[in-house]
Amino acid sequence: MTDDRLERLERRVQYLEDQHEIARLLSAYGPLVDAGRATEVAALWEPDGVYDVDEIYLSGQEELAAMVRSRAHQSLIAGGCAHFLGPPHITVHGDDAVAVCHSLLIVHDESGYRVRRATAHHWTLRRGPDGWRARTRTSRLLDGRAESALLLGTGAMGLGLEEST
Amino acid sequence: MTDDRLERLERRVQYLEDQHEIARLLSAYGPLVDAGRATEVAALWEPDGVYDVDEIYLSGQEELAAMVRSRAHQSLIAGGCAHFLGPPHITVHGDDAVAVCHSLLIVHDESGYRVRRATAHHWTLRRGPDGWRARTRTSRLLDGRAESALLLGTGAMGLGLEEST
Amino acid sequence: MTDDRLERLERRVQYLEDQHEIARLLSAYGPLVDAGRATEVAALWEPDGVYDVDEIYLSGQEELAAMVRSRAHQSLIAGGCAHFLGPPHITVHGDDAVAVCHSLLIVHDESGYRVRRATAHHWTLRRGPDGWRARTRTSRLLDGRAESALLLGTGAMGLGLEEST
Repeated sequence: MTDDRLERLERRVQYLEDQHEIARLLSAYGPLVDAGRATEVAALWEPDGVYDVDEIYLSGQEELAAMVRSRAHQSLIAGGCAHFLGPPHITVHGDDAVAVCHSLLIVHDESGYRVRRATAHHWTLRRGPDGWRARTRTSRLLDGRAESALLLGTGAMGLGLEEST
Repeated sequence: MTDDRLERLERRVQYLEDQHEIARLLSAYGPLVDAGRATEVAALWEPDGVYDVDEIYLSGQEELAAMVRSRAHQSLIAGGCAHFLGPPHITVHGDDAVAVCHSLLIVHDESGYRVRRATAHHWTLRRGPDGWRARTRTSRLLDGRAESALLLGTGAMGLGLEEST
Repeated sequence: MTDDRLERLERRVQYLEDQHEIARLLSAYGPLVDAGRATEVAALWEPDGVYDVDEIYLSGQEELAAMVRSRAHQSLIAGGCAHFLGPPHITVHGDDAVAVCHSLLIVHDESGYRVRRATAHHWTLRRGPDGWRARTRTSRLLDGRAESALLLGTGAMGLGLEEST
């Protein structure tokens, strides 16, 4: 009886921890990428993690870190920018998870601040020996292309992109 | 003694679950509405849920779904948009809850992205047979009208609008 | 054996509660400050809490409340504004914690809405007799100044500013 109650509690706490750890992982992305912390950004992904954005397909932590160190990204930071992610909606399936969120890229120039991009993000994550890490981030501009709506809808239903309906 | 500890733990976990489930429900709104998933958006509310925005008063899941399917909303999606909600502040009272958050409506057009609206949201929610659902969402533009500040202040105090001070 | 399991569970729940309470405290800031609730904004900080923004250094709840009541802040509210904070990344060390987030200040004027500022925030918090309160908020514009990147990177590593690397 006590054992059953303990087991149920342990499962409930595990679920909350999974949700929390994933949300915490994702909440580090924006601050780290705007700080130019290339190694730490890359470490949010698994060693062979994928970052698939409209114009870019990166695979593996080295390519991820190189993106942060790139002249394009460094000049965003030098001018002033915010990679502003919204609160993610997360679905956990055992040792796998799907998350979805929006982001805004805010940039600063001599005339002030403006929204350069609004983006839809579909994440898949996996629990490994060191906790949850991103496997894939698939991101598309919210400029009316059908793919972005698909990422958001699929992600909010907790589905992987190969399961999208 | 063990029973007391278990009971206290169960209550603490229940509280965290309530907070989490409500936050998770609200985090689905933006992705679903930008994906045009009318049925799924409506299902975030109770069957007779209310959506009270400046110029619109909708009541019931059918009206909510119709709003998502409307030409006005579909043309927002077709042009590119983000209904970007901030992290909600939630207060749970037994089977009822109050949440408050901001949102931005970001729209895309030929000149890029801009902030079309900033809005204050006051939500009331209830725990039902299938978990937490929204009862009411009361939303006003943050354009200086006194009502918006009232929604934010009342919501952050965990009060319903009829209790607002 | 049962005692050990209970103790482990209690520690895990305590950690989730700490993370949750701090996130909930920070999620009240934007709604309260846009509602002009001066006393409630100030109460998010410890009595001698610090608010260190580019051009302003405030110390203590009285100065914090006076900032909310100031003509400058009240005229922001009267015109329409949103102090929109992103989901914080929080690191708890016993009774102390560090949090980091972005914020956007969205303002309304006759031509609509625009992003007036994007800001990096590094918070330190402490658990006191009434729960978690902010000790310091250190905030710098994301306009390319090196300090902002330092706040974000240091915060995301869970470090205080005196430990920044």
